[in-house]
Amino acid sequence: MMALDSALDWQQIMAAVERAVMPHIGAGKVADYIPALACIDPRKFGMAVALRDGTMRCLGDADERFSVQSISKVFTLALTLQRVGEALWDAVGREPSGSSFNSIVQLEAEKGIPRNPLINAGAIATTDRLVHSYGGGQAGAWEAMDDLLDTARRLAGDQNIDIDCDVAESESQSGSRNRALAHFMASFGNMKNPVEDSLSAYFCHCSIAISCRQLARAALFLAFDGFDPVTGEEVLSKERCQRILAIMMMSGHYDNSGEFAYRIGLPGKSGVGGGILVVAPGHGTVAVWSPGLNQAGTSMVGSIALEELVRQTGWSVFG
Amino acid sequence: MMALDSALDWQQIMAAVERAVMPHIGAGKVADYIPALACIDPRKFGMAVALRDGTMRCLGDADERFSVQSISKVFTLALTLQRVGEALWDAVGREPSGSSFNSIVQLEAEKGIPRNPLINAGAIATTDRLVHSYGGGQAGAWEAMDDLLDTARRLAGDQNIDIDCDVAESESQSGSRNRALAHFMASFGNMKNPVEDSLSAYFCHCSIAISCRQLARAALFLAFDGFDPVTGEEVLSKERCQRILAIMMMSGHYDNSGEFAYRIGLPGKSGVGGGILVVAPGHGTVAVWSPGLNQAGTSMVGSIALEELVRQTGWSVFG
Amino acid sequence: MMALDSALDWQQIMAAVERAVMPHIGAGKVADYIPALACIDPRKFGMAVALRDGTMRCLGDADERFSVQSISKVFTLALTLQRVGEALWDAVGREPSGSSFNSIVQLEAEKGIPRNPLINAGAIATTDRLVHSYGGGQAGAWEAMDDLLDTARRLAGDQNIDIDCDVAESESQSGSRNRALAHFMASFGNMKNPVEDSLSAYFCHCSIAISCRQLARAALFLAFDGFDPVTGEEVLSKERCQRILAIMMMSGHYDNSGEFAYRIGLPGKSGVGGGILVVAPGHGTVAVWSPGLNQAGTSMVGSIALEELVRQTGWSVFG
Amino acid sequence: MMALDSALDWQQIMAAVERAVMPHIGAGKVADYIPALACIDPRKFGMAVALRDGTMRCLGDADERFSVQSISKVFTLALTLQRVGEALWDAVGREPSGSSFNSIVQLEAEKGIPRNPLINAGAIATTDRLVHSYGGGQAGAWEAMDDLLDTARRLAGDQNIDIDCDVAESESQSGSRNRALAHFMASFGNMKNPVEDSLSAYFCHCSIAISCRQLARAALFLAFDGFDPVTGEEVLSKERCQRILAIMMMSGHYDNSGEFAYRIGLPGKSGVGGGILVVAPGHGTVAVWSPGLNQAGTSMVGSIALEELVRQTGWSVFG
Repeated sequence: MMALDSALDWQQIMAAVERAVMPHIGAGKVADYIPALACIDPRKFGMAVALRDGTMRCLGDADERFSVQSISKVFTLALTLQRVGEALWDAVGREPSGSSFNSIVQLEAEKGIPRNPLINAGAIATTDRLVHSYGGGQAGAWEAMDDLLDTARRLAGDQNIDIDCDVAESESQSGSRNRALAHFMASFGNMKNPVEDSLSAYFCHCSIAISCRQLARAALFLAFDGFDPVTGEEVLSKERCQRILAIMMMSGHYDNSGEFAYRIGLPGKSGVGGGILVVAPGHGTVAVWSPGLNQAGTSMVGSIALEELVRQTGWSVFG
Repeated sequence: MMALDSALDWQQIMAAVERAVMPHIGAGKVADYIPALACIDPRKFGMAVALRDGTMRCLGDADERFSVQSISKVFTLALTLQRVGEALWDAVGREPSGSSFNSIVQLEAEKGIPRNPLINAGAIATTDRLVHSYGGGQAGAWEAMDDLLDTARRLAGDQNIDIDCDVAESESQSGSRNRALAHFMASFGNMKNPVEDSLSAYFCHCSIAISCRQLARAALFLAFDGFDPVTGEEVLSKERCQRILAIMMMSGHYDNSGEFAYRIGLPGKSGVGGGILVVAPGHGTVAVWSPGLNQAGTSMVGSIALEELVRQTGWSVFG
Repeated sequence: MMALDSALDWQQIMAAVERAVMPHIGAGKVADYIPALACIDPRKFGMAVALRDGTMRCLGDADERFSVQSISKVFTLALTLQRVGEALWDAVGREPSGSSFNSIVQLEAEKGIPRNPLINAGAIATTDRLVHSYGGGQAGAWEAMDDLLDTARRLAGDQNIDIDCDVAESESQSGSRNRALAHFMASFGNMKNPVEDSLSAYFCHCSIAISCRQLARAALFLAFDGFDPVTGEEVLSKERCQRILAIMMMSGHYDNSGEFAYRIGLPGKSGVGGGILVVAPGHGTVAVWSPGLNQAGTSMVGSIALEELVRQTGWSVFG
Repeated sequence: MMALDSALDWQQIMAAVERAVMPHIGAGKVADYIPALACIDPRKFGMAVALRDGTMRCLGDADERFSVQSISKVFTLALTLQRVGEALWDAVGREPSGSSFNSIVQLEAEKGIPRNPLINAGAIATTDRLVHSYGGGQAGAWEAMDDLLDTARRLAGDQNIDIDCDVAESESQSGSRNRALAHFMASFGNMKNPVEDSLSAYFCHCSIAISCRQLARAALFLAFDGFDPVTGEEVLSKERCQRILAIMMMSGHYDNSGEFAYRIGLPGKSGVGGGILVVAPGHGTVAVWSPGLNQAGTSMVGSIALEELVRQTGWSVFG
C-alpha cells in the first residue's frame, strides 16, 4: 500500500481535481439560516490532502478558515468516547437514521435515543455527556469547549483555530429546532445537564473556524488506526478509531450517506458550512470546502472534488 | 497487501474463530415464519473463506446447503444492473432505510420508491425490472431465474445449486407482507409486470439452496473489482462492483447495518436462513451460516464468527 | 322539535340552497382514477332531503344515479354489525385516523388494525367480516352483496338500485392500493377470507349506482334511532344507530372530518363519486351529489349546499 | 326539548349514576408526572350538572377544587377566538390528530401547524396568540391569565377559582415535552412570543383549581348557542359556539376522542387532573371529576358516570 501511494503523481492528481471542479464552481445553494453563513462567497473552493508523512497537498482556498459546522461532530464524538467510554451508547445509537439531519420523528418512536452521534440530536446528546464529564453546567460547557479546541489545535499543530462567537451567537438565536430536539430528549430523561448549558457547548463547537489544511491535518490520526503518523501520539485506540470511521461511513451525510458511499466510497462527514472531511484508511485524510450545498446539505463542488480524487488515487475502501 | 495476506496463518485463524463461536452455538432464534426454515437444527454452523487464488478455508457445516434468503438480493442486484444498467435507479434508491426489512412506511412517504435494493421492497422492484428485461410475465420470470441460477453455478464452479421449490411455495403462501409491498409499489406505478409474476421470481431466488463454500466462491469477483481472480472473467465493471459493495455496507442488514459496520467493518448481506456473506476488498470473501438470528434477522453466531475473523485478519475496511 | 321542523318553509330553504350553490356549480376536481368516474359532467348537482313522514324535498339532479363509492361503507358497517355484532371491533377501531383515506402508515404502527370502518382499510376489513358471515369465499362475497343490495332497495322502497359492473371492474383493475392494504392486513392475520374474495365484494359495494332520492330515503332510519319512521321497521337498535352516527361524525370524511364537523355539524359520509350523505338526528337525512371534489375527496358544491341547508334549518347537532 | 328535560327525574338520574360508578371508584391510574397530581386520593368522585335555568344537580365531591389541566384549553380557545378571531386558524388546524396528546410527529409532517387547539401543541399555539393579543411578553402572559381567570370567575359566578401556583411551577419544571413542542413550532415560525412567555401562560391556565360545580356553571353558555341562559350574556356568537363544540367533539380526548363520541355522544374535554367537561346542546353542561385515568388520559370513573347520565337523559347528540 505504501508502495502504491508513493507512486501517486500528486501534481497530476490535483490538476485532475481542479479540472473536474472548475465547471461547477459556484454551484449549489449556500446555507442561509444564519447571516454569517449566508454571506460567504459561493465561489470559494479549497482542498487539502494530508498524507502519512505529514506532507500536505493543497488546492485553492485551502488556508482560508470556514465554519466547521457538523464536521465538529466527529471530534466531539472522539473526545467524548475518550472521556465517557462505551457508556455513550446508552445515550445514542449507531444506526443510519434514514432521515434528514434535524428530524424529530425517529426520536419519538425510539423514546428519545437518537440514531447516531452525527445527526443533530445525537450530537447534542453526545455533547451533553461530554459537558457532564467536565462537571456539567455552564462551567463544564466552557471546559469541554476549551479542551475540544485545544485538542484540535494540538492535532493540527496550529493555534490559529478558534470559535467564531458571532456564528455561535447566531446559531443559538436561530436554534429553535435544536432546542426542540434537546428538550424532547430531556422529556425522555436523555439529557444530563440543563438543556441550555449543553446547547451552548453544541453551538460553540459547530462554530469553530478552521481551514482545510488544519482540518485534514487534525484528523490524520483517523486514517492510521488512531495514531498520529507524524508524532506517533495515540489519540484513540485502533478499535475505537475503526468504529468512528464506521459511523462516519454509515451516517456522515444524513440522508445522503448512501449516495456518498456509492459515489466516493470513503468514510466522511459534511457540514452546512460547505466543508467535507474524508478519511482514507492507511492513506490519509482530505478536507474540502465549497459553500454551495446539495439538497441534503453536502457541498456540491466538494463532492465532485472528492469523487475525482478517489478516482485518481483508488482510495475507495471498496476496491 | 498480497504480502500481508500470504502471511496469515489460516490454521490459527480458523481455530480462533472456532473458539470464539463454540460457547454460542445454538444461540439466537431460528426464523419460523415458514416450516421449511423453522425445522433447521439451530446448532448448525459453517464457514467458508475464499481467497484470491481460489483456495478455500472451511469450518463446520461449510458444505451443507441452506436457504440463501435475502443474500440472493446481492446477485439479483448484480445481474439486474448488468441487464438494465443505471435505469434501475429510477425504480429504487441507494440510501439506508433506517427501518426493518419489510417496513411499508417509508414507501408511502417516498411515493413507492424503496430506499435500496437490499430491503424487501427494493429487491422486489429490482426483481421486477430483471423479469421485465427477459420479456416480462411468467415466462420472463422463469427465464430470469434460470439465468440467475446458471450464473451462480458458473461462478461457484458447482452445478449443485438449486431452487428449493418447497421453500419457494411456502414463501409465496406466507407472502402477504411482500404482496402488500408489491401492490403498494404498483399503486405508484413502480412495477412493470403483473405483481404475481415478479413475486414468483422473487420467492424463487430467495429459496436457492447453497452452501457456504459455494456462496463464498460465487461471490469472489466482488472482492476483486468485479473480476473473478481465478478465471479472470470480468463479471462486473470495477465501478459497478465498488458500488454494490457500498450498498451492501450501507444497507446489507436492514436496521442492523450500522451495528454490523461498527463491529465487523466489511460490506455484507445477511439472510433469515442464517447465512451472511461478507466481502473483504482485495482479500477475499467469507460465507457463514448458523440459523439462530438476532432481533434484526442477522445470524448471531455468524456475526460472532465474522467479528473474530476480522480481528484475526485485519480485513476491516476501516484500518 | 317536531313543532320546529313543521315550521320550516321548505320552498324557501331549497331556494336558499340553490342560490348558495349556483355560483360554484362545476367547481372542484372530478375523480379521475377510473374512466367511469372521470367522464361525469362536473356541472351535475342534485340534493334530496328525506323527512320523518317520508316526504322528500329535492333539487336538481336528485333522481340521477351516481356512483355511491365510500358512502356504501355506512351501509356495509350497519349490515356487518347486524350480522357479526361487537366482534367487528376486533378487526377495526373507531378512532379518527388523522390521515388520508388510503394511508398505510397507521396500519403498520397499529399491527394491521385499521382506525375505523370508514377509511378504506377499515371498510375492507369490515367487508371481509361480512363476507365471512355469509360462509366466506367468492360465494359468500356474492351473497353478501346480494343482501346489501336488497337491503338498500328495501329501505329506499325502490328496486332501481344496482351495482355498476363496469365501475366495479375498473375499481378492481386500478385497485393496487386497496390490494396492498388488504394484503398488509392479511400479513397481520386481520383478513378471514382470501384477499381477492373480500376485495371483490368491496369493489362491488363501492360501485352501487344510486340517486340522491334513493340514498336519503334508504338512510332515513339512521335519523330516527334505527327505526324507519315511515314503515316502523327496526333496522338497527337505538344504541347501534347512535354509534354509527358517532363514527360518521368522527371519521366520515377522512382527514377532512374535522372541517366537516366544524362547518356542517352533522354526521355524514362522503364518496369520491361526489355524493355526501348526512344525518340530522330527529329530523331527517340529506343526500347531495356534485362530482367536483376538494383536496380531501369531498364534494365541494355538495359541502356548500349542506352548509346552507344547516344554516337554514338549524339542524346542527351542536345547537 | 324543553318539555323533555323538564320531565327528567333528577333524583332518579343521579341515583342511577351513583349506582353505576360505585363499583369502579378508585379505578384507573392517577397522573403522576408531577407530585401535586400524584398525591390526589384516587377515590375522589364529583359530578355537577348545570341546567338552562341555572339550577345544578350535584354528586359527591362536586364542590372540591381539582386541577383543571387540559379542560382549560376550551376556555383559552374561546377567549382567543374572541380576541384574535379567525386569524387563529393560521396557527392551528381543526382536524382530529389521531395521535396521543403530546405527539410531535404530526408537527414535523405539517410544518409546525398543530392539528387542533385541544392537543398540547395546539393549545400552546393558541395561548401564544392570546398572549400576543395582550401585547406579548411576560406582561402579556400575566394579563392574559388575569383575563382568563376573571372570565371563568364571572361565568361561574364564583370568585373562588384560582391558579394553583405550585402546580404551575411543577408543570413548568416537568415541561420538557411541552417546551420541545413550543420550540419546534418556533422553528417553523409558528410562535409570536418568546417560548417561555407563552409557556408560562400555558402552564398557568392548566393549573387552575376549580370544582365541578364551578366548571359546569362557567361552561353553560356553550350549551345555549353562546348565551349564558341565566344572565342572558352573549359570551360567544352562536356560530363560534357551535364550532367550538365541533372541535370538542372531534378532538376533546386525544386518541380517545372516537371512543368518547361512540360511548357518550356529546362534545367534551378531558384533563389529566381527572376532570371531564361535556356539553349537551340545548340541555346543559356536566362536569365530572375522578382522578384515575384510562390509557388515553381520560378519567375512567368520570367516563362511566357520563355514559350512564347520557343513557338516563337521552342527551346524546346522535339521537
